[in-house]
Amino acid sequence: MFEAAELGRKISREDFDALAPGLRTDLLALQQQLRQADFPVIILFAGVDGAGKNETVNLINEWMDPRWIETRAYGQPSDEERERPLFWRFWRDLPPKGKIGLFLSSWYHDPLIERVEGRLSVAELDEALTPILRFEKTLADEGALVLKFWMHLSQPAQKKRLKSLEKDPLTAWQVTEDDWKHYEQYDKFIAAAERIIMRTSKGHAQWRIVEGVDGRYRSAVVLQTLKEAIGAHLAARGVARKVVAELREETRDNGAAVTAVLPQQPSILSSLDMNRTLDPDTYAQALQEQRARLARLYRAAIEARLSTVLVFEGWDAAGKGGTIRRLTNALNARDYQVIPIAAPTEEERAQHYLWRFWRHLARAGRVTVFDRSWYGRVLVERVEGFCSAEAWQRAYAEINDFEQQLTGHGIVLCKFWLHITAQEQLTRFTARGEIDYKKWKLTEEDWRNREKWPLYEQAVNDMVERTSTRGAPWTLVEANSKPYARVKVMQTVADALESALFKRKK
Amino acid sequence: MFEAAELGRKISREDFDALAPGLRTDLLALQQQLRQADFPVIILFAGVDGAGKNETVNLINEWMDPRWIETRAYGQPSDEERERPLFWRFWRDLPPKGKIGLFLSSWYHDPLIERVEGRLSVAELDEALTPILRFEKTLADEGALVLKFWMHLSQPAQKKRLKSLEKDPLTAWQVTEDDWKHYEQYDKFIAAAERIIMRTSKGHAQWRIVEGVDGRYRSAVVLQTLKEAIGAHLAARGVARKVVAELREETRDNGAAVTAVLPQQPSILSSLDMNRTLDPDTYAQALQEQRARLARLYRAAIEARLSTVLVFEGWDAAGKGGTIRRLTNALNARDYQVIPIAAPTEEERAQHYLWRFWRHLARAGRVTVFDRSWYGRVLVERVEGFCSAEAWQRAYAEINDFEQQLTGHGIVLCKFWLHITAQEQLTRFTARGEIDYKKWKLTEEDWRNREKWPLYEQAVNDMVERTSTRGAPWTLVEANSKPYARVKVMQTVADALESALFKRKK
Repeated sequence: MFEAAELGRKISREDFDALAPGLRTDLLALQQQLRQADFPVIILFAGVDGAGKNETVNLINEWMDPRWIETRAYGQPSDEERERPLFWRFWRDLPPKGKIGLFLSSWYHDPLIERVEGRLSVAELDEALTPILRFEKTLADEGALVLKFWMHLSQPAQKKRLKSLEKDPLTAWQVTEDDWKHYEQYDKFIAAAERIIMRTSKGHAQWRIVEGVDGRYRSAVVLQTLKEAIGAHLAARGVARKVVAELREETRDNGAAVTAVLPQQPSILSSLDMNRTLDPDTYAQALQEQRARLARLYRAAIEARLSTVLVFEGWDAAGKGGTIRRLTNALNARDYQVIPIAAPTEEERAQHYLWRFWRHLARAGRVTVFDRSWYGRVLVERVEGFCSAEAWQRAYAEINDFEQQLTGHGIVLCKFWLHITAQEQLTRFTARGEIDYKKWKLTEEDWRNREKWPLYEQAVNDMVERTSTRGAPWTLVEANSKPYARVKVMQTVADALESALFKRKK
Repeated sequence: MFEAAELGRKISREDFDALAPGLRTDLLALQQQLRQADFPVIILFAGVDGAGKNETVNLINEWMDPRWIETRAYGQPSDEERERPLFWRFWRDLPPKGKIGLFLSSWYHDPLIERVEGRLSVAELDEALTPILRFEKTLADEGALVLKFWMHLSQPAQKKRLKSLEKDPLTAWQVTEDDWKHYEQYDKFIAAAERIIMRTSKGHAQWRIVEGVDGRYRSAVVLQTLKEAIGAHLAARGVARKVVAELREETRDNGAAVTAVLPQQPSILSSLDMNRTLDPDTYAQALQEQRARLARLYRAAIEARLSTVLVFEGWDAAGKGGTIRRLTNALNARDYQVIPIAAPTEEERAQHYLWRFWRHLARAGRVTVFDRSWYGRVLVERVEGFCSAEAWQRAYAEINDFEQQLTGHGIVLCKFWLHITAQEQLTRFTARGEIDYKKWKLTEEDWRNREKWPLYEQAVNDMVERTSTRGAPWTLVEANSKPYARVKVMQTVADALESALFKRKK
């Protein structure tokens, strides 16, 4: 879930200085409109200590008109507060319509920390999230715009950041013992955060994960998100529709400045080392080894009635078919099924979009390979506009939920994105066109999809960010070299199986 | 919650025979339209054993075209099913678009029974409801119409029904040992049911509670609900809008036949014995006794830091003010506050509608009396159209949640509906008009509200059905006699306080 927020995204001082004045003007203009609006804006910051929560809140107060902003941070409840129900203090502090409320260490703080420190079980954490879900839902139902930012740092980045804060006498006071305690518990902290974000990211109150290493990048992302979300909410509520439209017209140039800088940021795919390869001898040996290993593990899995579901997604011509064949070669034909996912059948179209995946779940001990999958909704259907934005946005939660039911039932689930570069795809397309018996594989559609490469790249990035979880992680496979890709996939499956079998035995 | 389903509602054979043909024709016509629609209808039946779940499912199959209906009932999962995640069997059985699926003993069955038999704690029950909520949400999000019926019987009615089924050789097989076991556990069963219904009644998948004693009444309610819900969903999805409109035109007479019979059914208010009264001597003595008792209990409550929230609702001129004054006479002025709820202030209008009630929650040990309350949303705001239907419908869940936070914090919560008959109100209005110093109390609005008596009565009935819970029950007060009403209120508060203090001590 946090992979895409550990890429080292940053913005140079020059770029930031170029976009800042326009963005700030827009935000001030929107804030003026907001004062007449019939809803409040509730913005919540949480995340890794040192990832810039306080700095961002300060910046918002600096850039916008602070008379219409209320900032609230919470510590231990007072006597007054303890004598009332838990949420009284948050209700009391809600901003009225037309104002912005910034919340630090608020309603997610206690459940997160108590889970990290082991005072809550996972089930109790979920229980503690229930009133939060209701709280945010009732606020949104009454019209509030609810924005939640998770400011993220990797563990090494957190260490560096805390050290640098400590060194500067002006900021040393910011670093508390608790911060270092949380740093020591980084893994637990992230595991709890992942569950919280997965459970509480709703259409009406979405989490946005922001990489917190670079102050300028983080500020630009948060402020740009604010601008877009407030503008869209004003427009959706029919408030000052005209003014918002005019503002958009005016500020198109400013917007362009920001949006020109932000997408240049590395995506999760650009962080892959695409030069990885295997020489023929190593490949032959590794293939044989992994095949033997898989065959052995699968016999054990069938005996243990341990099922496996494998998901393959990737660019056209990334080699999904060949990889799947190498893998299934290690298995007995009766024990696996490859499900190619193309356009749904008539029967499938008459059902919920997940129904056709549910129906293919195999009996205990079997392997089900999905050649393309339920991720079609957030990839091709999103990019091609085959479903509404509302539908693919809510699909992340539906998919997480579906996969949680699989893994919760003890099924081993591996998900692969086979990645090739645009150049490599072109080479493969051209080669296909030249080989007679492969010509049929190349269609007009392949060329059309190729033109939408950046849109697909964005969709893949979002998919990994929203659906790569501890229980069901994505494996990104560097597939410019087919041998390398095949071995990596087989090895990943074998590792997953081995660890699941080991857990069963315990 | 189930009070309104224990009133002995029934329909005579003649009335039923008069409405049946029209209703049946409408349902068949709607079913034809449904076949072209882009959504399935998912109807779930649950409830007390013997309340007519099976009979209703049979009747639907008999009245409508069974080729477009799929009925599913679940027992112990098969091997096949056990090898897949829990919800696999429900996904597998979902009706396709255009069809109706009837579900018996389905996804609510196990959580309910496991809670009744003590294998799930309350927290674990909530945990088990989470995947159900998600399941229904994703179905509804994709367009499905989800209807849930809770068929209810009181415990004596259940006994009678099971005995009568057993006596008839044709139906004796229907009564299982489990049925009698559930009968023995009736209280636990109802407590679990209440929690489930409260937690899972959502706008997109509402529970409808149906009194199950009389077969004709129960059938008419379910079938009429089906007709209205399918018609509305077809219209809302823009399917066959014209045909639905025509159908409505055609079937107006049939509709009228049903709707003429159903509202004649007793409401929860009509079940009150409005002749209750107290003679002056008894009243004087009881008043003094309860006052002394309250004063004593309140001193103990202040010491124990036990807070109380009292809610007063009722018809105009039902005597709320006088009752509240008698009650607060027993208290020390510094320990209580009476909050009269009229139109919201400017500051309050700028906030969520519940905010103004949250802000009035007092410190530990205090008494807060709400003269009118948050129930305004489902009473006056509903009837007068001051808020959208969507808003007051979702308010039941919001209110239950709010009150759960109060009682969960240990606050004693009593809710009173002061009921007078329309005749008594007229007498009081007229008397007010004749006494100079009371004239100001009588406004044009009072007369206008009076004209909407049946609408308010329906709203009160729904309010009690949806918000009278074990943790926060409504007390309906027969208030034609002011002395009787005052004593009943004081006694109820004293009893609640006594039992809360007793629990604290333990």
